[in-house]
Amino acid sequence: MQRGAVFRVLIGAVYRTITPVCQYAVSPYTFTHKPFVRSLTSTVKMSYSVLEKGYPNTLDYRMFFVNTSGNIISPFHDIPLYANSEKTTFNMVVEIPRWSNAKMEIDKDEKLNPIKQDVKKGKLRFVKNVFPHHGYIWNYGALPQTWEDPNHTDPETGTKGDQDPLDVCEIGHKIHKQGSVIQVKVLGVMCLIDEGETDWKVIVIDVTDPLAKDLNDIDDVEKHMPGFLRATTEWFRIYKIPDGKPENNFAFGGEAKNKEFALTVIAETHKQWQGLVGKAVDAEGISCENTGVAGSPYLIPQTEAKSIVDSYIAGGSSERISEEVNMWHYVKL
Amino acid sequence: MQRGAVFRVLIGAVYRTITPVCQYAVSPYTFTHKPFVRSLTSTVKMSYSVLEKGYPNTLDYRMFFVNTSGNIISPFHDIPLYANSEKTTFNMVVEIPRWSNAKMEIDKDEKLNPIKQDVKKGKLRFVKNVFPHHGYIWNYGALPQTWEDPNHTDPETGTKGDQDPLDVCEIGHKIHKQGSVIQVKVLGVMCLIDEGETDWKVIVIDVTDPLAKDLNDIDDVEKHMPGFLRATTEWFRIYKIPDGKPENNFAFGGEAKNKEFALTVIAETHKQWQGLVGKAVDAEGISCENTGVAGSPYLIPQTEAKSIVDSYIAGGSSERISEEVNMWHYVKL
Repeated sequence: MQRGAVFRVLIGAVYRTITPVCQYAVSPYTFTHKPFVRSLTSTVKMSYSVLEKGYPNTLDYRMFFVNTSGNIISPFHDIPLYANSEKTTFNMVVEIPRWSNAKMEIDKDEKLNPIKQDVKKGKLRFVKNVFPHHGYIWNYGALPQTWEDPNHTDPETGTKGDQDPLDVCEIGHKIHKQGSVIQVKVLGVMCLIDEGETDWKVIVIDVTDPLAKDLNDIDDVEKHMPGFLRATTEWFRIYKIPDGKPENNFAFGGEAKNKEFALTVIAETHKQWQGLVGKAVDAEGISCENTGVAGSPYLIPQTEAKSIVDSYIAGGSSERISEEVNMWHYVKL
Repeated sequence: MQRGAVFRVLIGAVYRTITPVCQYAVSPYTFTHKPFVRSLTSTVKMSYSVLEKGYPNTLDYRMFFVNTSGNIISPFHDIPLYANSEKTTFNMVVEIPRWSNAKMEIDKDEKLNPIKQDVKKGKLRFVKNVFPHHGYIWNYGALPQTWEDPNHTDPETGTKGDQDPLDVCEIGHKIHKQGSVIQVKVLGVMCLIDEGETDWKVIVIDVTDPLAKDLNDIDDVEKHMPGFLRATTEWFRIYKIPDGKPENNFAFGGEAKNKEFALTVIAETHKQWQGLVGKAVDAEGISCENTGVAGSPYLIPQTEAKSIVDSYIAGGSSERISEEVNMWHYVKL
């Protein structure tokens, strides 16, 4: 009986009745320079489809994006950040479905920014399952039209941007397919410090999730999904350890900042993207070609976009993934 | 920093540096009556294939078993329990692959005991994901030619058998397909008390798993997979709670018993199965038809087996599973 009691306390402590890690930020995040918004974006509601090249689970695999008009687009530059005119919902590009391991991401460097699998030492990269977790524990992806400028030093963390679009963790119950573009509401943000670079992780929920109406800010997550934010912190802290890397660190003691804070981060990185795509800053190897950002020096016609996509080998059936991907790894901190 | 420290302690407490829950049993399990072994079994190494009827993810779906000679068999009665002549490895029938939710099981009541999905209130049964777990956390299945006799009161637990073949949790890293027949070594056993009935859960590992050579008894599991047995106990304790049922209880304070104990449980339930298939006890609705158990009064010819299988509707493509299956549920104990 005593053992049973200890068991309950332990469960309660870690996943269930813990004091919430996340607190409302006392004051909203403020940036050092004034907003500078250019009318580069569209807020027209659209749906998207994908065009696959190469065989899935190979180095050649690429997923390009096509809009409702059948035009090839860049998921980084051409999908509007804001999904409604009130700017209360956002588009999210799903790169990695929940409970999967392949590290798929929008490629910043290839023209038209297809989704491809990250490669380490010539091999496709799969994120390890760190016990008790299975793969990514959310649908993971990016907010289009955002960019963490490496020239920008974050006033709160003192670190520079990691040159990526903003990362997003979607915590609803559906498993979204790779390449889905879904509409989400923003709940908060965590700040990972990855090898000295700022790496925001925005916490969002699919607006069509039944729980979305009850989740309006970061504290609501702990109320309805007790322990989930703590698991999220744990996940990011330890997920690279089985690959021989050190544990990751967080700004703000690992606490998730609230919605207001997150919205400011998004607005700021949207401006940084505007600087990038408008050529106000040096792209430094980042592919800014796009087919729909009015006023961008990188705008290209569909004929050119089509010839870029046509230069990739045709799609085909999936290659088999090694059983090693399904292994659980045990981490001691 | 303080928060970080607490975090580490909590992780360590539950999943990593906990004192092992499982101890070697001080004395092996003993049964009240003498072993009575009939030569009903074969230990010839075989491989098996499956024959699907009905559409997957429907009430009509059935998975029948076929041996290397192309003969239809019962996975309950015709697959030998022992996979080698030394009786050190065992055959396991995989009913539920790791990280899946459909409650698939060998049907005791239907002739030739196909695997089908359990049905509750007219609906296909899916086990809920209880956070932080995803579906079943092992490959789950049954040991063929075993049976927990409801007429047998367990001397240690004082409860009766649940009328099922012995349940098995295979803890290797591969995900085994539903209907696979794999060879496993036995490491230990847990004893769930399910609504007053004895429900053993044998802990095994696939003999082909790279870790199999290092796992020779239950204590080795904690050494190489710290926290896994505790997670297993947690899983069984809480998995029915989201369906409105109370938490499950364990005999032996939730501790896993060692290999020697487990082997005795297996030998005893093998004898109980022999009593069943040899008609020494009343089958009470259990289908004992088999095509290979020499001496069994329930032995039927292939022509009859074939006509049984032919009476089911043909197989077809999968029906879609509701997104609800992918929901995480949060349990407070």
